[in-house]
Amino acid sequence: MALVLGVDGGGTGCRAAVARVGGPVLGRGAAGPANISIDLEGAAANILAACEAALREAGGGEVRAAVLGLAGANVTAQAARLQGMLPFGDVRIVSDAVIAAKGALGAEDGILALLGTGSVFAVQQGGAIRLHGGRGFLMGDEGSGAVLGRALLRAALRADDGFRAMTPLLAQVLGELGGAEAAVAFALTARPADFARFAPRLLDSDDAAAVEIVGAEVTEVAEILRALQADALPPVTFIGGLGPFYAGRLAGRFAVRAAQGSALDGALALAGVLA
Amino acid sequence: MALVLGVDGGGTGCRAAVARVGGPVLGRGAAGPANISIDLEGAAANILAACEAALREAGGGEVRAAVLGLAGANVTAQAARLQGMLPFGDVRIVSDAVIAAKGALGAEDGILALLGTGSVFAVQQGGAIRLHGGRGFLMGDEGSGAVLGRALLRAALRADDGFRAMTPLLAQVLGELGGAEAAVAFALTARPADFARFAPRLLDSDDAAAVEIVGAEVTEVAEILRALQADALPPVTFIGGLGPFYAGRLAGRFAVRAAQGSALDGALALAGVLA
Repeated sequence: MALVLGVDGGGTGCRAAVARVGGPVLGRGAAGPANISIDLEGAAANILAACEAALREAGGGEVRAAVLGLAGANVTAQAARLQGMLPFGDVRIVSDAVIAAKGALGAEDGILALLGTGSVFAVQQGGAIRLHGGRGFLMGDEGSGAVLGRALLRAALRADDGFRAMTPLLAQVLGELGGAEAAVAFALTARPADFARFAPRLLDSDDAAAVEIVGAEVTEVAEILRALQADALPPVTFIGGLGPFYAGRLAGRFAVRAAQGSALDGALALAGVLA
Repeated sequence: MALVLGVDGGGTGCRAAVARVGGPVLGRGAAGPANISIDLEGAAANILAACEAALREAGGGEVRAAVLGLAGANVTAQAARLQGMLPFGDVRIVSDAVIAAKGALGAEDGILALLGTGSVFAVQQGGAIRLHGGRGFLMGDEGSGAVLGRALLRAALRADDGFRAMTPLLAQVLGELGGAEAAVAFALTARPADFARFAPRLLDSDDAAAVEIVGAEVTEVAEILRALQADALPPVTFIGGLGPFYAGRLAGRFAVRAAQGSALDGALALAGVLA
């Protein structure tokens, strides 16, 4: 029985699924972190463990093609080394955003907006997927939770400096962090996820600063989507932790389509094309 | 003869000057770096060397008060330790921005805008100086060269992603850095000064992206100055590498006053108040 294998791997864990080409999932497996840019050997071991568990559940068979969507997969040299470590026929390693886009959009032309701690956008046209953005916290990640949280802290500091009006939310955030100096110190060592933890309280808040910050990022995301739509006006699928929020805000301006499947579904679909 | 001592110290070097209270400078000295947050012992040794050279040139005398304006002086514990290492009567350690403001504004009420690699603002009212901003590259430094340069790189990446129109300047910057992936890698390790090196080519450029980026920062600086002016509308003194540029852009909207003296003059003036 010829099988295809899909893997969705990131910094917190990895999941694998096995299916017949075009058929239903026959087995699933999960294991620990799979960030190839941080720990290639560990990632390879976890990916293998997840795949073996999925194959066991499927009752075994020959894996003809495997697609791995991995965070950090743009580290080309590491990806090439990982490819050599995996005994699964034709192995292709792509960015986790590619399998997320394939899973969410299925076979349809469309735009993906993945908005979580970071952000990335993708356009699928005639089955080909192109990624846009995802440049990371410092240089991009437009509309992401980390960018929203950082904007909240910046606004709080600006208010503390007398550069803008203080609002209840800004005062609350400064108070929680222990004042402006402590907020600056926090920001110096904070990771994107630490900033993103402030994002939820911005959403749907009627605090003047929250309205301004959220409005700016919604506008930013809308401008990006408009640029990516070009003339064809394909529908947009929003996923990630902030996906539902942006979908709600932008439903009046874009044709919003629900995600068809998961990133793991996307990896299996791409593996099916290879097989 | 009772003397006062002023020191202007930063990460690249320190300068000292000795004067009679309210009198002309009698001696000057210079030495290496004086960043107390990075190397307290080395900073103390360099500051002492600069002061001793200034005192030698002045022909000696009793130092009644000394004011040191130092980068990193907000590291309170280090400043207190340094104070104990210096044998100069009444020693006060302040931020380098405070002596810059005192030197530039003299005895007049006014606003200081210090715009270089970073940025900081100060308001002097009735002889008292209050600092605003200077929150660093990540959280503030509005209008600074580092923020301008980062905005240029961000715009170049956004253009590469199809989020905005590519312009000749953006294409040139991407080409110099070796493409979008290389630009992201550059940004991940770049220090503020590395971003600031891109700022000069934005100033007075008629490239559409440059006009937009510079316009946004000029607006940002104008909003800050307007907020700091409150109702009194004091004049503004622009200093730092980008000072003349912003002064030119904002001369129609603010009363612009030239700097009266240097940061070292400011340190001596503040020491004169202590003596």
